Amino acid sequence: MPTYTPPLRDMQFVLHELLKVTDEYKQIPKHADVDVDTINAVLEEGGKFAAEVTFPLNISGDEEGCKLNKETHEVATPKGFKEAYQKYVEGGWPALSCDPEYGGQGLPFTLNQNFYEMLNAANQAWTMYPGLSHGAYEALHAHGTEEQKKKYLPKLASGEWTGTMCLTEPHCGTDLGMLRTKAEPQADGTYRITGNKIFISAGEHDMAPNILHLVLARLPDAPQGSKGISLFLVPKFNVNADGSIGSRNGIYCGGLEHKMGIHGNATAQLVLDGAVGTMVGEPNKGLQAMFVMMNAARLGVGNQSLGLTEVAFQNALAYAKDRIQMRSLSGVKAKDKPADPIIVHPDVRKMLLTAKAYAEGGRALANFCALLLDKELHHPDEKVRKDSAELVALLTPIVKAFITDNGWTATSACMQVYGGHGYIKEWGMEQFVRDARINMIYEGTNTVQSLDLLGRKVLGNNGATLKKFGKLVAQLVEEEGVNEKMSEFINPVAYLGDQMTKFTTELGFKGFQNPDEVGAAAVDYLRVLGHLVFGYFWARMAQVALREIEAGNKDPFYQAKLQTARFYFARLFPETATLLRTARAGVKNLLDTDAALA
Amino acid sequence: MPTYTPPLRDMQFVLHELLKVTDEYKQIPKHADVDVDTINAVLEEGGKFAAEVTFPLNISGDEEGCKLNKETHEVATPKGFKEAYQKYVEGGWPALSCDPEYGGQGLPFTLNQNFYEMLNAANQAWTMYPGLSHGAYEALHAHGTEEQKKKYLPKLASGEWTGTMCLTEPHCGTDLGMLRTKAEPQADGTYRITGNKIFISAGEHDMAPNILHLVLARLPDAPQGSKGISLFLVPKFNVNADGSIGSRNGIYCGGLEHKMGIHGNATAQLVLDGAVGTMVGEPNKGLQAMFVMMNAARLGVGNQSLGLTEVAFQNALAYAKDRIQMRSLSGVKAKDKPADPIIVHPDVRKMLLTAKAYAEGGRALANFCALLLDKELHHPDEKVRKDSAELVALLTPIVKAFITDNGWTATSACMQVYGGHGYIKEWGMEQFVRDARINMIYEGTNTVQSLDLLGRKVLGNNGATLKKFGKLVAQLVEEEGVNEKMSEFINPVAYLGDQMTKFTTELGFKGFQNPDEVGAAAVDYLRVLGHLVFGYFWARMAQVALREIEAGNKDPFYQAKLQTARFYFARLFPETATLLRTARAGVKNLLDTDAALA
Repeated sequence: MPTYTPPLRDMQFVLHELLKVTDEYKQIPKHADVDVDTINAVLEEGGKFAAEVTFPLNISGDEEGCKLNKETHEVATPKGFKEAYQKYVEGGWPALSCDPEYGGQGLPFTLNQNFYEMLNAANQAWTMYPGLSHGAYEALHAHGTEEQKKKYLPKLASGEWTGTMCLTEPHCGTDLGMLRTKAEPQADGTYRITGNKIFISAGEHDMAPNILHLVLARLPDAPQGSKGISLFLVPKFNVNADGSIGSRNGIYCGGLEHKMGIHGNATAQLVLDGAVGTMVGEPNKGLQAMFVMMNAARLGVGNQSLGLTEVAFQNALAYAKDRIQMRSLSGVKAKDKPADPIIVHPDVRKMLLTAKAYAEGGRALANFCALLLDKELHHPDEKVRKDSAELVALLTPIVKAFITDNGWTATSACMQVYGGHGYIKEWGMEQFVRDARINMIYEGTNTVQSLDLLGRKVLGNNGATLKKFGKLVAQLVEEEGVNEKMSEFINPVAYLGDQMTKFTTELGFKGFQNPDEVGAAAVDYLRVLGHLVFGYFWARMAQVALREIEAGNKDPFYQAKLQTARFYFARLFPETATLLRTARAGVKNLLDTDAALA
Repeated sequence: MPTYTPPLRDMQFVLHELLKVTDEYKQIPKHADVDVDTINAVLEEGGKFAAEVTFPLNISGDEEGCKLNKETHEVATPKGFKEAYQKYVEGGWPALSCDPEYGGQGLPFTLNQNFYEMLNAANQAWTMYPGLSHGAYEALHAHGTEEQKKKYLPKLASGEWTGTMCLTEPHCGTDLGMLRTKAEPQADGTYRITGNKIFISAGEHDMAPNILHLVLARLPDAPQGSKGISLFLVPKFNVNADGSIGSRNGIYCGGLEHKMGIHGNATAQLVLDGAVGTMVGEPNKGLQAMFVMMNAARLGVGNQSLGLTEVAFQNALAYAKDRIQMRSLSGVKAKDKPADPIIVHPDVRKMLLTAKAYAEGGRALANFCALLLDKELHHPDEKVRKDSAELVALLTPIVKAFITDNGWTATSACMQVYGGHGYIKEWGMEQFVRDARINMIYEGTNTVQSLDLLGRKVLGNNGATLKKFGKLVAQLVEEEGVNEKMSEFINPVAYLGDQMTKFTTELGFKGFQNPDEVGAAAVDYLRVLGHLVFGYFWARMAQVALREIEAGNKDPFYQAKLQTARFYFARLFPETATLLRTARAGVKNLLDTDAALA
C-alpha cells in the first residue's frame, strides 16, 4: 500500500525562500497580516487532512467507483467519501480563500494552491468534488447578480452545497460553439433549460444535499456559434427565497461513464428536461463568464498532476531503497545483503529524479502563478494587477499542459521503478498513472492549450507578454551572469531564452503566411517554453540553495535542491534540443499526408 | 466500439518488396518451397481469425477478467476465450512454425511473426495463452531429452496443451540468482519441486486440459547465484507413459493478480508443493536453457506493442476523419458541415502519424528479425547462421524496448486524438494504453534490455556486432549516396551512424573506467540505436516506394509510404538530438544525488 507525506518543507522553501510571499503580501492590504507562521500552520493542518482523511480512501475509491441508481437518478460515491467531505466542511476548508463577505476566510491563493496540491496527491477523484465547487464559486463571484451571490455563495464557501461546470455535449467538447442545449425565458425572469450534457465531473453525488450546476445553453434568439452562448445557474434542487431547499429541479443524471481512472469521481451524463435556471452574467456572453472558471480549472488541473507526481515520487523512492535486486555495476554496495537496493542503479535514479525535478519545478511555477492571482485580484497598484493578470494568462496553458504531460511521464517512470509490482493494483502506482492521464485531456486538451499559448497569448499580442517573462529571465541573468557557480544553471536558460526570442519571431512570420504553421509548431513550442520557465525556476532555486550553502547552512535540503537542479539541466532540459528542431520542422510533413492518412 | 483490419498490404510490402523473403527462402532448403501465394494466403486466413474470433473478445475480456475458484484452484477465463482457443487449435494455428517431426507445419518464422502481430492487435490478453506455449515449445525443442520431446512437443504443436515459463518469485524478478524454489532428486530420476512463483502469465486457465510449466529451481547441492539454477518441466497433471493425462500434480494457483491491464490473461501465483518434475537440459544450466525462451519472448513482447500500435492507429484515424470539431486554422475545409473533421488539424495528424510511423517501422524491423531467425536455424551456410544469430541478438533488446516504449507513446497519442472519449472504456482506446504498459516491464524491464544491449551486445564484443549492422547502413549509403531524391532519408541515417560509432567508442572508454557510466547511458543509447535502426528501415522503405513511383506505379500505397517516411525523419528521428546529449551527460548527475534521494 502506498503512503503519502505532505511535502511541507519544500512548500515552505518555495513560499518563504524562493518567492518570499509574505514580503509580497505586505504590499497587498487584504493580505498584509498573513505571516509565515499562519501559512505554515494552515499547510500543516491541511496536509494532515489530506494524508489522514482522503488518502486512505484513494485505492478503495478506485476499486469501488460510483454507482448510479437508475430509478432515483441518485449516485452513491465510494465508501467514506461522504464522511470525508463532512470533515472537510466541518474543518472550514472550503472557505480558505473565499471572500469574507460570503463567509470565506479570505486567505491568499497560495494557501489554496498548496492545500489542493496535497489533496490531489492524496486522492484526485475525491478532490474533484470540492475542486469543481471552487470553480463555480469563482464564476458566480465574478459574474453573478447580487441576489445570486447572496443566495448561493455562502453555501459554496461553507461547502454545504457543491458546484459543477456543464459545458460538454456529445457532439461538442472543444468546439462549444456547436452546443445545442436550449434556455427558454419565462415570465418570472427564470429560464427553462433543456438538453444533454456529458462528462460532468462531480455531476451527481451524495456528499451534499444540493448541487449548483453552471450550465452553458442558448437563448432562442441567440446568434450561431460561440457568440450565442449564455451561462445559467441550475440547482439540483430549487432554492426557496429563504435559502432552504425546495422542489427537485429537472436536471437528472442519466448515466455514469466507465473510465480509465478517477473512478471515485462521478462523471455524469446530465439530462436537462425543462430545468429551471437563472442567468449568470449577460445574455450571449456565457463563454466569457465561464472562462473565469475555466482558467481557474486549468491551473487546478496542472495542480492535480503536480500532486500525483509528488506522491508517485515518494513511493517509488521508498521502494527503490527497500527493494534489493542485482548488484551495482561498479561493485557491491550492500555487503550485508544478498543484493543491492535498486537505488544504486543509475537508471533507477534517473526515473526517480525525473519525478522529483518535475514535482519541485512544477511547485515553484504553480505557486508563482497563485501569487500572481493574489496580486491580480488585490494589489493596490493597477499596473501590478494588469501585469500579473497578463503573466498568469501566459503561464496558465503551461501549468495545464506542461505539468500534466510531465505528470504522465513521471508517474509512469515511478511505476517502472517497481518492475512487475508497478503493474499490480495493490501497490497503488498504476492508479496514479491512470488518474494522471485525464489531466492531459480535460479542461481543454493539451493541444488546445498549446494553441491558446502560441496563437493567442504569444503571437496574439506580438510577443508583448512573453517579453514580460523574458524580463524576469534577463534580470536573473544580469544578477548572476558573472557568478561562476551559477553559470551551469544560468547559461542554458539564457541561451534558450535567446533562441526562443528568435524562434517566436520566426513563427510569427510563418504563421502570418500560413496559420497552420502555428498549429504544426504549437505543442512543441509549449514544451520548449515550459522548459524555459522550469529552467528559470530551477536556476532561481539553485541560487537560493547556493547562497544558503555558502553562508554555512548545513541543512541537507539545500544540497538536495542543488543536486536536483543539476539533474534537471543535465537530463530533462536538453529535451529542448529536439523540440526546437521538431517545432521548426514546418507543416508540410504533417499536412502533405493525405495518402498516408487515407 | 473499436474495429480492426489486418494490415495485410503493409505486411506484404515488408515481406515481398522490402525483405524479398521468398528470395531468401530459396537459399534455405527447408523453406525453399514457401512462395508468395502461400505466405499471403496464410496471412489472410490468420488475419480473419484475429479480426473475427479474438478481437470481438478484447473489451469483454478486459471487463470480465479471470476468476479463481479458491477451493478447486481452477481459473475461469473470460467468456468466449475457451471457445476461441478451441477454434485456434482446430485451425492448426499452433503448429504454424513448429517442427514437422512433432506435428508442426514447419513454416518460416516470418509467418508466425505477422500472424502474432495480428493476434496481439486483436487481443493481447488472449494471445498470451498460446504465445507462452510457443516459448515453452522452443525451450523444450532446444534442450529437452528425446523422451521429453516425444512426449510433450506434439501436445504443444497441436495446441492440445499449453505451456508457461515460471521464473519470478516474490523477492526476485530481474535477479534470478536469488531464487529459492527447491528441486529434490527422487530415486526414479524425477524431482520434487517446492516453492512459490509469481507473475506467471497464463499460469492457470480452463482453455486446455493440461499445462506444461517450465520452472526454474535449485538442486540441493547447487552453487549460489545464477549458476545454481536448473530448469524443470512440471505438468499441471502428470502424464502417463502412453501420453494420457494422469494424476493432478502438486502445482496450484494460489491467487491471481489484479492488474492495470491484460485482464483477460491469468497472472498466477503458483504454489509448488512437492510437484513432480523432470529436468530440462543440464543441472545448474537452467538459465541458459530458459534464455532460448526468453529471447523468443522478448521478440514476442515487442510484437505485442507493434500490434497495439497498429490497432490504436487504425481506430484513431477513423475517429479523426469522423469527428467534427472546430475549423481548420487555415480556413473552412468541410463547407457542408458545421465544423471540420479533426484530421485537418496539424497536431492531430502528428499524433496519428507518430503511431503509423512507429507501427510500420516496427513491422519492418520485426520481420527482419524473424527472417534472421529463420536463417539462424536453417540456413545451410554456417557463417550465415552465425552472423544471423549475432545480429538478431543485437536487435532483440531494441525490438523489445524500443518498440514497447514507442507503443506506449503511440497508444497514448491515439487515445489523445479522441479527447474525452479516449478516457472512456467503451471506445476501447484506454485499454490499448493499459495493455501496452506491461510490455515495457515484463521479460526484463526496458532498463534491463538497455544494459543487455549496451553492456553485453555492443561493448561486450567491442562493437563487433554493431559493426555488422553498421555495414548494412554503409551499403545503403553507398547505394543511394548520390541519389538526390534519397538524400533526405540517407543523410540523417549516415550522419547518425557516424555519431554512434564515435559515441560507442567513447562509452567503451568511460565504461572501462567506471561501469556505472554504462548504466547511466544505456537507456538513451538504446533509443538512439533504435532510431538508427528505424531510420535505416524507413530509408529502405522510402527507396522501394520511390522506385515504384518513378517506374510509374500509381498505387497510392507508395505515396503513403513516402509521406510517412518524411514525417518520421522530420518529427520522430530528431529525438536523437536530445538523446545523444543526455546519453553523454555522464553518471555524476545521477549518482551524486544522495541528498536529493535521502
